[in-house]
Amino acid sequence: MKMFKLNPNYIVGLIDGEGSFTVYVKNPNSLKKTKRRVVVEPRFYVKFVEKDKEILYELKEYFGCGNVYFQKDSRKNHQNCYRYEVSKRDDLQNIIINFFKKNKLRLFSKKNDLKFFCKIIGMIEKGDHLSLEGLKKIYKIKQKMH
Amino acid sequence: MKMFKLNPNYIVGLIDGEGSFTVYVKNPNSLKKTKRRVVVEPRFYVKFVEKDKEILYELKEYFGCGNVYFQKDSRKNHQNCYRYEVSKRDDLQNIIINFFKKNKLRLFSKKNDLKFFCKIIGMIEKGDHLSLEGLKKIYKIKQKMH
Repeated sequence: MKMFKLNPNYIVGLIDGEGSFTVYVKNPNSLKKTKRRVVVEPRFYVKFVEKDKEILYELKEYFGCGNVYFQKDSRKNHQNCYRYEVSKRDDLQNIIINFFKKNKLRLFSKKNDLKFFCKIIGMIEKGDHLSLEGLKKIYKIKQKMH
Repeated sequence: MKMFKLNPNYIVGLIDGEGSFTVYVKNPNSLKKTKRRVVVEPRFYVKFVEKDKEILYELKEYFGCGNVYFQKDSRKNHQNCYRYEVSKRDDLQNIIINFFKKNKLRLFSKKNDLKFFCKIIGMIEKGDHLSLEGLKKIYKIKQKMH
């Protein structure tokens, strides 16, 4: 059996503190044409400054999915960051959501985000995002997050 | 034996993500007279938006020291916060630092902050902050934090 460096309770604490469950949803009410083809994109990520990036690789190893990305920040007094991100839907469902079903988050706002995150993923599964009506519903749910 | 809601590993993760070990040090090079009498003040704190404040009371219960304070934020797009804070030196040494000796932080920057936090508390113990020379030393160490 593989031994992981990270403890599940530690991960829950870290994610309660710094993790994000977020969904990009194209605004269905906007008439502007955007270059982005994707209309709905759920993502789970954790971001840290460069000197703390080691933990992101440990999360990647623990979950066995996702990737670590460099994130430039050119704002004054802001450091470059790295983020661990999972956006593949299968991985989100089978690994990430599954983990947080077994290991419950404690923060109200984080539990709330996860709830709507799961709900939107379920709607994508059913193809709701492919109709304007469905997209509007998803967009409305997204407003309840964070 | 009392059962706590929080698990030590969870706390370590939460603090790695959102906790702060910080030291207010009066600038010994500044000639400006400040109203603040305290010259050095180490503080451990965790801050969350109002809807997540429950966890702060759970931390207070777990550690059996410190307090939860309301922190108004009048900036636009910022929510009012609550923070759990320990500033009593005995509590910092006997409870907080002791906890993190047994339950190691993982993030480089957080471990680094804790290291200098402990160092400064040790110097205060010896009364170093009472001389200008000592205060200058403490001020220099403080620059290495965060």
